[in-house]
Amino acid sequence: MARTRSLLDLEHLSTEDISFILKLARKMHTRPPRPSLRGKRIALLFYEASTRTRVSFEFAAKLLGTHTSVISATASSIEKGESLVDTGKTLQALGADCIVIRHPSSGAPHVLARNVRVPIINAGDGMHEHPSQGLLDAYTMLRHKKTLKGLKVTMVGDIQHSRVARSNIHLLSKFGAQVVLCGPPELLPETALTLAPGLKITRHMDEAVRKADVVMMLRVQKERLAGLKLDAEKYTTQFQLTLDRMALAKKDAIVMHPGPMVRGMEIQTEVADAPRTVIEEQVHNGVYVRMAVMSVCMGVA
Amino acid sequence: MARTRSLLDLEHLSTEDISFILKLARKMHTRPPRPSLRGKRIALLFYEASTRTRVSFEFAAKLLGTHTSVISATASSIEKGESLVDTGKTLQALGADCIVIRHPSSGAPHVLARNVRVPIINAGDGMHEHPSQGLLDAYTMLRHKKTLKGLKVTMVGDIQHSRVARSNIHLLSKFGAQVVLCGPPELLPETALTLAPGLKITRHMDEAVRKADVVMMLRVQKERLAGLKLDAEKYTTQFQLTLDRMALAKKDAIVMHPGPMVRGMEIQTEVADAPRTVIEEQVHNGVYVRMAVMSVCMGVA
Amino acid sequence: MARTRSLLDLEHLSTEDISFILKLARKMHTRPPRPSLRGKRIALLFYEASTRTRVSFEFAAKLLGTHTSVISATASSIEKGESLVDTGKTLQALGADCIVIRHPSSGAPHVLARNVRVPIINAGDGMHEHPSQGLLDAYTMLRHKKTLKGLKVTMVGDIQHSRVARSNIHLLSKFGAQVVLCGPPELLPETALTLAPGLKITRHMDEAVRKADVVMMLRVQKERLAGLKLDAEKYTTQFQLTLDRMALAKKDAIVMHPGPMVRGMEIQTEVADAPRTVIEEQVHNGVYVRMAVMSVCMGVA
Repeated sequence: MARTRSLLDLEHLSTEDISFILKLARKMHTRPPRPSLRGKRIALLFYEASTRTRVSFEFAAKLLGTHTSVISATASSIEKGESLVDTGKTLQALGADCIVIRHPSSGAPHVLARNVRVPIINAGDGMHEHPSQGLLDAYTMLRHKKTLKGLKVTMVGDIQHSRVARSNIHLLSKFGAQVVLCGPPELLPETALTLAPGLKITRHMDEAVRKADVVMMLRVQKERLAGLKLDAEKYTTQFQLTLDRMALAKKDAIVMHPGPMVRGMEIQTEVADAPRTVIEEQVHNGVYVRMAVMSVCMGVA
Repeated sequence: MARTRSLLDLEHLSTEDISFILKLARKMHTRPPRPSLRGKRIALLFYEASTRTRVSFEFAAKLLGTHTSVISATASSIEKGESLVDTGKTLQALGADCIVIRHPSSGAPHVLARNVRVPIINAGDGMHEHPSQGLLDAYTMLRHKKTLKGLKVTMVGDIQHSRVARSNIHLLSKFGAQVVLCGPPELLPETALTLAPGLKITRHMDEAVRKADVVMMLRVQKERLAGLKLDAEKYTTQFQLTLDRMALAKKDAIVMHPGPMVRGMEIQTEVADAPRTVIEEQVHNGVYVRMAVMSVCMGVA
Repeated sequence: MARTRSLLDLEHLSTEDISFILKLARKMHTRPPRPSLRGKRIALLFYEASTRTRVSFEFAAKLLGTHTSVISATASSIEKGESLVDTGKTLQALGADCIVIRHPSSGAPHVLARNVRVPIINAGDGMHEHPSQGLLDAYTMLRHKKTLKGLKVTMVGDIQHSRVARSNIHLLSKFGAQVVLCGPPELLPETALTLAPGLKITRHMDEAVRKADVVMMLRVQKERLAGLKLDAEKYTTQFQLTLDRMALAKKDAIVMHPGPMVRGMEIQTEVADAPRTVIEEQVHNGVYVRMAVMSVCMGVA
């Protein structure tokens, strides 16, 4: 892996680079944090609301000894009509050694990366990708499963609008997992099959969950359902992850969710709190994965 | 005192625990700050606007060497409908060693404390309690008075809606102070007497202030008066703390206010700036008291 | 220079003090940052949106080893009607060793400085001054020119409403630069001549730029033009800095802009990205200048 670079997406990241990051995250996980990036400056540029991702990057950055500054879209020059690229150049000129960006427009981090010299970390761009989430999800799976190869990973819900789904699909198919997508056509069009080779689509939740090693639920937004004229109650009946449905999965299957979850909507509260559910573990692992990502991007790994 | 626990209210905190915290705060006050919590992570979860309390906790946390992250309700997943408990679990999973929470609903910190393993510090919940404020007020009184026992403490204003009043009442009555409450029935119903043993209510400001050792004024919100159809001018005439009224108190009486104060409303500007007024000292002491609270809650005291 | 003081404006700062700060900034620039203010507390009190100035002060403060706390007008007691002075006194009581303030009202930092004991740094007040910007602009000019004396510095645009223009005018005329102001009467009334001795006004952009050593463009807000019934297109034709116009300046002239710039409005995009344009360098230098300012204000220089 190049010693200094951006993390923009998982689609174009090699399996070697992914493995390198995951291995480094494992190392970060087993030892007390070291301020290996002491004195570096990290700009956290958030054009969208976020708790878990922002705080995760912020704690990760601080554990590595860096100086952080959070810039949120609502209290900045962005309001004065400065372009994204000029904002990026300004942060670079301010001495930022790395820019973590979340943006509602797909591709915004790529635009930034083409126009500044400091590494850019995509913390979620529109409906495109959320690569650090994909990495921490793979990391979490590998804490429970020996390998991703051959693993049946079922993803249920609003695949169409989910950057988390996209990043997971790219990573998992690179590593030979068998990815099954499940949801109504409005949230999961057939064209989703073109995202990566070997994907399968089913409209039947029971079939999707049967013999799964991993069931990953995605948040469903009521507003979005309403916009699509989908009945929330009907959706819940067809696609909610219940204890009954989880009984169809493998005995040692795990349940994942990128959060924030809406209990009683896409996931039954009993499943959310079940022992096989690793949602909090995902969040916990995220800090180590992001420490690894920042270290690699800033060339100190 | 248990080595790791939450600070949820003063109503259920023992006098031993309170004394322990106040003694530790005194120690913090007399020596340069030590980073005794170095590397710990503190989440400052503020669902309500705050300057003094948030910055006080933030500086206290940083002086102890911790990594802090501020989460305000307007720029977080909270907007996406995540439940308070799930937000708390997420912060815990992110490695937060302590969560400081301010919330508009009474009891929110208790709900959090029952559902996460990390210590919770209540930074003000609805109309319930504001325990660190009660502690810093007691601390401040004890910088000027030998003991709380027998002290005449007069509290004036919107007692009914004040979490500061509630926390002070609980602490002061535990330590045998003579607490006198004063205000119009709309802001101070007779039921307030049930809060703690030995309370007295008077509707006459002069009587309330006479021979007082401490006069604690509470902020009166114009909006609230309007809602109660109380005349602001009439309120001021009856309950404003003026220099004339302060002349009725003991010679060495002090004036307190939790802030932010509205000069010309509940307090005459001449009183606000008088030498016997310790409002800024309260703010100053708050940093030490919160350093002590965090140390105790995180088991490093 | 007094060992502890405020930076409120450049109008009343002596050339000796200015030179002292610029020299210190140069020292900061050439060596790795040292935590010479370790443990100090800095309050960043921003009543107006800001990216570059806020992050610049924040990074500068952190590089000097201080604890920072950002207070923005939208999430604080300010909403509860506390006065500016009481907010300042609260921050002082919280142990802030220095308050950096941006405020929409001209003179707000002066009011604060008269009422608190800690040094106040003006980070922009209304249409009055933005002294740290004036200092960093002078610093940047001196990285390219031997001396300010006799330098032809042309400032173009909304001089009337620009605190950046005001601070630059005061500094530059103190040091004997030849300042030429250019813009339409609505944005540059004749009264601007009284700001400092030796100023010149011209309405003709070509004349203004001819033989200039420095061309400093100011942001023009479309909303403001509309309010003044100025035609944006006509404004652009008359006052936009184009490559053609820059050809009239001296061969080694530099182009400056305090940002955020509106490309295609006051500045042609080709000029914004030209090699002689030092806009990013201004931002970069700002961090060192602010480190110097904070060091001087807090008496550690």
